Amino acid sequence: MISKKMLETGSRKSIIRVIFDFGKERAALIGAENVYDFSLGNPSVPAPEIVHQCIRTMMEEESSTDIHGYTHLQGDINVRSKIADDINREHKTALTGANIYMTTGATASLRICFSAIANPGDEFIVIAPFFTEYRIGIEQAGGKMVIIPARTKDFQIDFEALEAAINPATKALVINSPNNPSGVVYTRETIDQLTALLRRKQEELQQPIYLVSDEPYREILFTDEKLPYLLNEYDNSMVCYSYSKSLSIPGERIGYIAFSPKLTDYTDLFTAACGSARYLGYVNAPSMFQKVAAICNGSVANIDIYRQNRDRLYEALISYGYECVKPEGAFYLFPKAMEEDASAFCAKGRELNLLMLPGDDFGCKGHVRIAYCVDPMVIERSLPAFKKLAELYKKGQDL
Amino acid sequence: MISKKMLETGSRKSIIRVIFDFGKERAALIGAENVYDFSLGNPSVPAPEIVHQCIRTMMEEESSTDIHGYTHLQGDINVRSKIADDINREHKTALTGANIYMTTGATASLRICFSAIANPGDEFIVIAPFFTEYRIGIEQAGGKMVIIPARTKDFQIDFEALEAAINPATKALVINSPNNPSGVVYTRETIDQLTALLRRKQEELQQPIYLVSDEPYREILFTDEKLPYLLNEYDNSMVCYSYSKSLSIPGERIGYIAFSPKLTDYTDLFTAACGSARYLGYVNAPSMFQKVAAICNGSVANIDIYRQNRDRLYEALISYGYECVKPEGAFYLFPKAMEEDASAFCAKGRELNLLMLPGDDFGCKGHVRIAYCVDPMVIERSLPAFKKLAELYKKGQDL
Repeated sequence: MISKKMLETGSRKSIIRVIFDFGKERAALIGAENVYDFSLGNPSVPAPEIVHQCIRTMMEEESSTDIHGYTHLQGDINVRSKIADDINREHKTALTGANIYMTTGATASLRICFSAIANPGDEFIVIAPFFTEYRIGIEQAGGKMVIIPARTKDFQIDFEALEAAINPATKALVINSPNNPSGVVYTRETIDQLTALLRRKQEELQQPIYLVSDEPYREILFTDEKLPYLLNEYDNSMVCYSYSKSLSIPGERIGYIAFSPKLTDYTDLFTAACGSARYLGYVNAPSMFQKVAAICNGSVANIDIYRQNRDRLYEALISYGYECVKPEGAFYLFPKAMEEDASAFCAKGRELNLLMLPGDDFGCKGHVRIAYCVDPMVIERSLPAFKKLAELYKKGQDL
Repeated sequence: MISKKMLETGSRKSIIRVIFDFGKERAALIGAENVYDFSLGNPSVPAPEIVHQCIRTMMEEESSTDIHGYTHLQGDINVRSKIADDINREHKTALTGANIYMTTGATASLRICFSAIANPGDEFIVIAPFFTEYRIGIEQAGGKMVIIPARTKDFQIDFEALEAAINPATKALVINSPNNPSGVVYTRETIDQLTALLRRKQEELQQPIYLVSDEPYREILFTDEKLPYLLNEYDNSMVCYSYSKSLSIPGERIGYIAFSPKLTDYTDLFTAACGSARYLGYVNAPSMFQKVAAICNGSVANIDIYRQNRDRLYEALISYGYECVKPEGAFYLFPKAMEEDASAFCAKGRELNLLMLPGDDFGCKGHVRIAYCVDPMVIERSLPAFKKLAELYKKGQDL
């Protein structure tokens, strides 16, 4: 009698949930400090002090109705203008507040973009490994997800496969760099090759191919090389941003979309984005955190801890015999599982109290995601378990 | 090339927008103090002091990751339990935290309920006048909206029409008391007659008929009569609540759904609700304001101002010859327009700098909505314009 589709959607017991439940049971049994939970991408560092400072100041200096009142669907225009100015200063773009749409985080950013451009049956290309929730977002928008297999040697793009996948039904390509789950950052060469290919294909097919760039990890970067800003690289691009990771406030649901002013059918597209948000029931991004975002834009939580964690864990894993591409961003390692079935490998890990996610849901079998956004002590304590797990495989021994 | 459906959704230039734009132009021309804007349901009173107090305390005493981290899709279990306890104490229910689903405000509450129960073609009955956004929500869920015409003499329910509308395709009835746009509160008699009818129809049709109660104005009440709590009145009910109006924080997007533990197929329904939220990309309700809601639940902004505004404006309008049902809640008056075409009446009002909304979009022609959640000075200054508008009609004179 109730919605069959939503019951099915709600029933898909995600592996994250299974592992979460396991972790809780296990913690009750042997103590939380003996469970090494690398399953969740929940930032472990506090928000930068400016976040709480500006909330305090706002509550002293601004009226309650200004802080907490409705904003326009697209967000407060002063907030949008401040963010546009910041982007212009940093990336030499020429945005105005009108190009920024404030959202309830990256999920909403993506959903608004997907819905705004999808007509039934349109193809959205994603590159494995990809964030699991793309699937439901593209489905909800009425699109069809097309997966480019992972280039596992470095997790850059397999351009041959990508080119073969582009056809007249292609509406958009979704990218995510720094990447969840691999942590890999696209090189300047990858971006150049990608945008050249898309431009060529647009020309060939005589249709726009939109580039939707999911960038919640933009600032979680461990290389000195500057990340190209896609609005400068490709006209038909939209940058989906979230403050969840940069400000360590993932529960607050605040982010934005930056629309390239050069997008094909810009005005219609922005109008459709407003329509999508209304259709999805988003109303407006939380008003106080819109203002927080404007003030704190550019500030970043202390990511040194993530870098330390990455270095410590990556080097240890390599020394134990794991194969892993060294990632330059986000807070994930994505090593190869030591047997073909990554779920079986994760299950063996769990017997040693190591909680990891199999790559299958991310469109990349045979790998596991380790979210190292944890207290450095968790890394230290977990190392013997990682070592033991590798040794068990080396011995060809079953647990 | 972009989404035709979303372009159309975004292009429907709502009358609210037209009036908003007019108001801004007019304010620039003659000064904001001379424009009497009654078009928006944006609370005009500050949040109760406890809201800012508890935010300050939280920032001093709790860790940043606890305040701002992701919560479960359904919300923080401590928050949900606290709210369930409060409801139990006030309404003698027997809820647990598991019956509460934290949402990004009433819109999300409704969307989650609609999507969770709708299969394609299911009918959702709404009673005119109704909040305009029900239409898009029911459409998004794949349902069909069936409208019961307004009983304009008192804006209670036309039970004959309601009974005639119930059929095997009926999935749910949506009610909203205190009502937007009429301000009317359903009487105890109305609720008794309604729930008796629904029980009888469930029996006759041998199927559940869900009652979705939209209650953002629950506390904005000017009568001593206690509002019945629907979970005590009817087993198949869901209460969609928002703190937007009670705490005067509409921009923060925080509310909840209270699911009756006696709902048919309870477990599946709750699972489908989780599926709906995931499908719509809601992730979790803003984490800090979940905690604020738990602490401030039961506190109410100073609604005396709304009562004063209602009394002053209602009595003045009646003395000028307007016909209007005296409302006992929310912050709206819904008088009859003085000509058949409410839009034309509103346009004439605008020439006197009075901004009102025609009832047409609320499913009730020939009436206008006056949102009196404004500074009492706006009411005072607007009275000569209301008087003049009435006089123009009395003289049969055109502006």
